[in-house]
Amino acid sequence: MARPHSKRFYQRAEAKPGSGLWLYGLHAVKAALANPRRTPVRAVLTERAHAEIGPKLLARVANERADAEKIGRLLPPGSVHQGAALQCEPLPRRDLSEVLAPSPRRRIVLVLDQISDPHNTGAILRSAAAFGASAVVVQDRHAPPESGALAKAASGALDSVPYVEVVNIARALDELAELGFWRVALAGDGERSLKEAVADGDIVIVLGSEGAGLRRLVRERCDASALIPIDAGMESLNVSNAAAIALYEIRRG
Amino acid sequence: MARPHSKRFYQRAEAKPGSGLWLYGLHAVKAALANPRRTPVRAVLTERAHAEIGPKLLARVANERADAEKIGRLLPPGSVHQGAALQCEPLPRRDLSEVLAPSPRRRIVLVLDQISDPHNTGAILRSAAAFGASAVVVQDRHAPPESGALAKAASGALDSVPYVEVVNIARALDELAELGFWRVALAGDGERSLKEAVADGDIVIVLGSEGAGLRRLVRERCDASALIPIDAGMESLNVSNAAAIALYEIRRG
Repeated sequence: MARPHSKRFYQRAEAKPGSGLWLYGLHAVKAALANPRRTPVRAVLTERAHAEIGPKLLARVANERADAEKIGRLLPPGSVHQGAALQCEPLPRRDLSEVLAPSPRRRIVLVLDQISDPHNTGAILRSAAAFGASAVVVQDRHAPPESGALAKAASGALDSVPYVEVVNIARALDELAELGFWRVALAGDGERSLKEAVADGDIVIVLGSEGAGLRRLVRERCDASALIPIDAGMESLNVSNAAAIALYEIRRG
Repeated sequence: MARPHSKRFYQRAEAKPGSGLWLYGLHAVKAALANPRRTPVRAVLTERAHAEIGPKLLARVANERADAEKIGRLLPPGSVHQGAALQCEPLPRRDLSEVLAPSPRRRIVLVLDQISDPHNTGAILRSAAAFGASAVVVQDRHAPPESGALAKAASGALDSVPYVEVVNIARALDELAELGFWRVALAGDGERSLKEAVADGDIVIVLGSEGAGLRRLVRERCDASALIPIDAGMESLNVSNAAAIALYEIRRG
């Protein structure tokens, strides 16, 4: 499939602000407008979405009214836009060290090893926000770039949880260990149960793609491997469901 | 969006066996062929998928070899078919009472109140299979019908977990209470935490759509309402993620 919002496209398009990226959906558009790090270019909204988003957030961006059909034509076919579309710049990149503030709660970082589906990655961002994770770390060449589909699945979380693109996952895991994080690989053949593996401390949860699983060099960088006990009849959980369970277990107390 | 696999379509098509429904993806096709209740009509497979599925399962169905591109043309655009497509009959309907066998483990039933997205419903079926739920109950007029997208997201679970379509959700909840199930509505404003609400016994988890939530008359039929504690910044979890967390909590022990 074509990837119109690929990073290469952004890079080529940098001279023409915002031409590449359209976000859509009420939560995604509101969160983007509420994010001071986001540069909005143009909002196209139905009357209803305009009222729902409100004048305070809309003061930041040139905005115009349109009907739902016209908004749909700005977006990939089938996009569930709820009357709200926002053309904007991709977020500036951030380093891992920049986003890991000290916290009174246990800190959680999710590391996604080559998970390519924007719906899964978006749903993981959404759960990361819901359970107060500090960051979602992905490998830049093997992760979905910022896109409308990713932001919609994230339901606003793309603009609230740092989405950190790194060149090398193994090196990021080294860095996290130096910062005192305990690194847990989630795998169907993990050595401990999830609840034992994440019992305390700052935690990194490392998740692999559904097809290939975790790469060996990534798994070897982890301090422990954990499994979510499931019935023998099923091979695995959906990766965003597995991530949600891990986040829940860590915050369950 | 057009719903080519809607129930109305099946009904019209009943004289022409299997013309409506194509399943695809290795897990979905394998599970359908392993399900004695499923009537397969025709399989179209790449050499590789043919070898992967194997002669034992394929003995049940007329099958032919094709390349990936030709298989893709049988399916909706963008279907991730992994070289395997199976034309088949929709499953015969089953009543709730028929699928609830006694069990040495706590029994779990998921009730979906007007969740319409096949990817969410499919992911819920997959988690239901992973955690040994007895059934997933939906309202026939407001649920995704059997389709390739649903079966693919379910990763085989559409053919292993009973998918029970009922006319009236409230009546199904009455029936479950008579069978001794404790009915828990999952809601952002639930009165108890999930872990308290599902502490023991046979459990029904009732989930609403992400937009509208649970309908009042459905929620009133429940014995308790439960929330998954999340941070204030996010309004809700993705519904399949919420379902996975509930299933995990019940089986967590």
